[in-house]
Order: sequence, then C-alpha cells, then structure tokens
Amino acid sequence: MTSSGIERVRIDLAERSYDILIGSELLAAPASYEGLPRSADAMIVTNTTVAPLYAPRLQAVLGTRHPQVHLVELPDGEVHKDWQTLNLIFDALLARACDRKTVLYALGGGVVGDMTGFAAACYMRGVPFVQVPTTLLAQVDSSVGGKTAINHPLGKNMIGAFYQPLRVIADLDTLRTLPRREIAAGLAEVIKYGPIADDDFLGWLETHADALMALDSGALARAVKRSCEIKAKVVGADEREAGLRAILNFGHTFGHAIESGLGYGQWLHGEAVGCGMVMAADLSRRLGLIDEGYTRRIRRIVERCGLPVRGPALGADRYLELMRLDKKAEAGEIRFVVIEAPGRAGMRAVPDGMVREVLAAHSG
Amino acid sequence: MTSSGIERVRIDLAERSYDILIGSELLAAPASYEGLPRSADAMIVTNTTVAPLYAPRLQAVLGTRHPQVHLVELPDGEVHKDWQTLNLIFDALLARACDRKTVLYALGGGVVGDMTGFAAACYMRGVPFVQVPTTLLAQVDSSVGGKTAINHPLGKNMIGAFYQPLRVIADLDTLRTLPRREIAAGLAEVIKYGPIADDDFLGWLETHADALMALDSGALARAVKRSCEIKAKVVGADEREAGLRAILNFGHTFGHAIESGLGYGQWLHGEAVGCGMVMAADLSRRLGLIDEGYTRRIRRIVERCGLPVRGPALGADRYLELMRLDKKAEAGEIRFVVIEAPGRAGMRAVPDGMVREVLAAHSG
Repeated sequence: MTSSGIERVRIDLAERSYDILIGSELLAAPASYEGLPRSADAMIVTNTTVAPLYAPRLQAVLGTRHPQVHLVELPDGEVHKDWQTLNLIFDALLARACDRKTVLYALGGGVVGDMTGFAAACYMRGVPFVQVPTTLLAQVDSSVGGKTAINHPLGKNMIGAFYQPLRVIADLDTLRTLPRREIAAGLAEVIKYGPIADDDFLGWLETHADALMALDSGALARAVKRSCEIKAKVVGADEREAGLRAILNFGHTFGHAIESGLGYGQWLHGEAVGCGMVMAADLSRRLGLIDEGYTRRIRRIVERCGLPVRGPALGADRYLELMRLDKKAEAGEIRFVVIEAPGRAGMRAVPDGMVREVLAAHSG
Repeated sequence: MTSSGIERVRIDLAERSYDILIGSELLAAPASYEGLPRSADAMIVTNTTVAPLYAPRLQAVLGTRHPQVHLVELPDGEVHKDWQTLNLIFDALLARACDRKTVLYALGGGVVGDMTGFAAACYMRGVPFVQVPTTLLAQVDSSVGGKTAINHPLGKNMIGAFYQPLRVIADLDTLRTLPRREIAAGLAEVIKYGPIADDDFLGWLETHADALMALDSGALARAVKRSCEIKAKVVGADEREAGLRAILNFGHTFGHAIESGLGYGQWLHGEAVGCGMVMAADLSRRLGLIDEGYTRRIRRIVERCGLPVRGPALGADRYLELMRLDKKAEAGEIRFVVIEAPGRAGMRAVPDGMVREVLAAHSG
C-alpha cells in the first residue's frame, strides 16, 4: 500500500477523537490497523451478504494482531436491527469468554455499524470498536457521529447510545460490489452537504456526478472525505445533538414519512432522503429563503444521481401525521431543516398549509 | 420537612456531577426535587413489591412538577433483571409517546436502579434519570458510581452502561419496610469501607452496630453518608473503572463465587460479600499485610451485623474455577482486593495454594 492515496479525516472529540481513513485497498493492509489495541480477542461482526466478500481478508489481517479472531454473521437487513439480533453478538462474545479489552470490528453497512457500535457500548459497559464500512452510505454518514442504535417495534433507532469508534477504515474498493441502487442512495447523503454547508461542494458534485456514478476512485475519495469533514465539523460542535446537529437531517423529515408511510424497506433510506431534499428545498423557496433556480439545481442533482424526486401518494394528511410522530418533533410540533441561503441551513416550524402546498407539488 | 436533618453528598464528575440527599421524610417532600427538570412527562419505574408502599407518594409529589406522571411496575427480583423486563420500560415509554426530555425515576432497590439507569442510558440514546433507592444496599452502593446493567444468561451485569443520575434521593424511612436480612446485606457494603479506606469508620461501626441494626436514623444517616463519601471519592478518581475503583470489590471475588456456586438468589449479594470479606481479610493476613487481631475485628463486625462468616462447601476446585470466570479476571488470572494496612486496600495476584488455605479455613 502506498500512503499517497490515503485520505485522513480527524474527528476531534477530546479523548474520544478518532481518524477516518479513506482510500483503495485499505481493508487488507496492515498499515490501516497500526496503533489499534492488540487485545487477545477480536470479534468481527458482519452479515451473511458481506461475510463471503470481505470477512476472510479482514480475518487474515487481524490474525497478525490478535491471537484469537472471532466472527459472528448477522442476518442481513434493517428488519433484523433488533434486540434478538443484537443478542447474537452478546452470545458470541460470552460464548468465547471475550473480556472487556476485546475489540469489535463492524464489517458492513449502516445496520451492521449501528448494531456493532451499540453492542460495543453495552458489552461489559463498553469495549472498543472499529468501523469498516462497506457501503457508501455508511462511509459518508453512519461512520461519523457516534450514533448507534437498534429499532423497537414502536419506533426506529429508539434504543441506542452515543458511542465513538477507535477508527473508521473506509475502503473505497468495497463499493464495487454494491448494487447501483445502493450507490445512488449513498449519494443522497453526499449531496445533502452542499446545500446545508458548502455551496462550492454542490458545484463540484454537478461536475463530477457521472464520475461518482461510475465509481471513479478519485471522485469517490473526494466526495467521502468532504462529506466526513462537514459532518465532523457539525458533530464536533454538537456531539449529543442539542441543536446544530439537527441540520444534518435536511430532507429527513419528509424522507422518514415516505419510508414509514410505505413501510420500511420499500424505498431505501437514501432514496427517501433524496426526494425529501427536493421537498425541503421547495419549502425553503416558499419561505422566501432561496430562489427557484437553486431549488432546480437541487432537484437536478438528485435526479442525476438516480434518485426519485417525486414522493409516493400517501395523501397530505398521512404525511403530516407521520411527520408529527418523528423523533425530532417536540410536543407535536414539526420542525423542518430549511436552506436559509445556498450552503447554510437552519430550523423552522412551518404552517401546515405550506407543507400541504409542497406535498401537492412533489408527491402523488 | 426541616432541612436540618438532611445530609448532602456531592458526586463530583464535571458536567455529570450530582447530589445524594440522605435523610428522613425526603420522598414526599417537594424540596427534594427542586432544580430537577420539569419535563412534560415523568416515568416512575418500580416493582410490584415497592409500588404499593411508596409509588402513590412519589406520584403525588411528581404530579406537582410534571403534567403527566406515568408508572411502570416490573416483576420483583434479580431473576427478572433481563432484556425482557427492560423492554417493559421501553414499551411503556413508547406507548406513552415519551420524548427525549422525559425524566425516569427509579423507585426501588438495586435491580430497579440498574434497569432504570440502563433504560435511561439507551432510550432515544439517553434521557435523564433520578434514583430514589428504597434499600440500604442501593442507598450505599448502587446509587453511587453510575454503573447500570442487565444480566445475560451467560453472565451477570454483562450488558450495561456507565450513566449518571441527576440526583439520588435516599429516604431513610423507606428502610423501615425492609426485611431484616436485607438490612444486614446492606450493612456488608457499609462495613467494607472501613478496611479499604477509613480505619476510624470501622471503629465507629463497632460502636454503632446495634443502633444500625435497630434502624436508628442518626446512625443510618451517618453510615450511608460516609459510605457514599468514600465511594464518591474512589469513583471520582476512576469513573470508568480503570484501576483504583477495583478496591470497591473487597470481598467480592470470593462473594461472587459463593453466589454463583450456590445459584444466584440462595445467598443475598451482601451476605456473600460479608463472608467474602472474612476470606479476603484472611488472605491479606497470610500475605503478611495485616495481623490476626485485625482479621478478627473484621470477622466480628460481619458476624454482629447478622451476616454469614463461613462459606458453603463448594470445594476449593469449584471456588477457583468460578473465580477465574469473574468479569474482573484478565486472561484467566484472578486478582484479589487485599487490605494492605488498616484502612488501605490494593490488588494482588495470589498463588492458588494460598487461596486454598483460605478456603479450607473459612468454608465447608
């Protein structure tokens, strides 16, 4: 491995600070793991889809660092992000008598990362963990911020912890086995950072959308790095989600309503967020914050990345009902992330009538 | 309520600092809750034994602070300290649409406190909670230190978090409904603080053992306060159990082996710890650290508080096997908390032969 191709983003959280490594051929390279604890036991947590693709290489490289490298394969899919599946990790750790120095390695997408992180937060009240994200969404989004969780039958991500990894190793080569639809869904969270935080980045994305869709390594590295940098800056200022961090949910209030209204799994999270950003941009325009041209640019880049720009016909009443149930709502009031100016976001409570206008224009 | 009878111990943990209030008639007094958040929802978590005794009074006083006061009653007993029971708390919170500002109140002993604290740590990734401990053990031990957990079929307290309450309200009057055996078990953790940290306190306990057993309020207040102060000092220096904090486990390595070897629930935790302290004191003597007179004092105060001083006949091999499985063991080596001098403790690895001598003298 040459170090020239590796990008590094430092997440600055005092004693919980860590690095995100971004580049090609990182997963199997011993250098990616330098400085991590050489505990007696390591536990790779992955799922049945990812395991045959990447687990042997991770086992091999970790075998040079840990006397015992264990593996637990979870069933694949958001539907399994529950206590029963989480318990498979605890069962495996206890069956192998893993002590509190054991390092967990999350090998997979956002679901594997969320569950491994939460298991690490809870096992013996906290063991170290490392993220090895293998989806674009996990590389740009769930690897930064320390949010871990499982779902409850009555709500998504309702049970979890803020818990930081020791390191994130984002190997861009793992994206080559990802379905095209998953690449597009990951790009939704990349696009988001332009309107909310970096107007120049939106311009860069408009120039490089085709390269990203073609999985060009240089373009991917830049996109992942810039996304992580922006998220890191926001999270660094607001680790426990008191305020500023809410802007990362641009497009998510509409998006969650789409996911929930259709039943989770119909649309991918990123697809719902892509469409949600088109709606939230239009809401910002109706509030007089941005002009028609800017909303058109957002709609166009979402579309070019292969994402839907028109929401399903749930009916405005149902959309509003679902948005009022969102975890971000307080005392029944829906607050939206809006674009206050190109590259700057804020929070607003919006009259129902205006939300209905947006839904009439962009769904059904 | 007159404030003259209230003792206050400050637990100093930077932004997670909190107060322990100790005294009579605290539970129903509005002043005990001053300064706590007045969120829309409060959730009292208790069990079926404690609820009829104290829940109505807590509901009444919280009703003056929170528009909605909810109640969830868990089944009573360590055997229910599991995921299924924890989930009753999440079910109740979600069924009542409790948001992330909801304050949880733990009303009960150590099991209720551990589960409520862990639920608070995890619900929406963290909501505030207040401890209202109603057993002596919970007042002197589990209310300080921020340890929360549930059990796993393969091990006790294996799944949990370090999570601090906003306040601990230790009403000594709630101890009057406690079985005498539970008072004795709580005193085991009180006695502990003499040998490990405060030789004068051991002398005070020798003078006041009868008053404590008779639930004299002044004696109880002093004993609870001093125990919390010492634990607070140790925990403040080592919040996440890196080293020093281990001395709080004086008597616990032998004690856990007794509890586990007999099957949990046969002996109370405090009973096992009482006997374990007699064994650990003898181990310290055999290491040449303390004299015969001091081990006799420890044995005598344990006995006077109604606690067992002779372990069950598990056989030395079984004791050693169980101690090697203890969570504190690392790479199979058992490390014991020993008394290095009256009022001072340390950690030692001890040859199996010496442990066998201790077991031969104090069990069977």
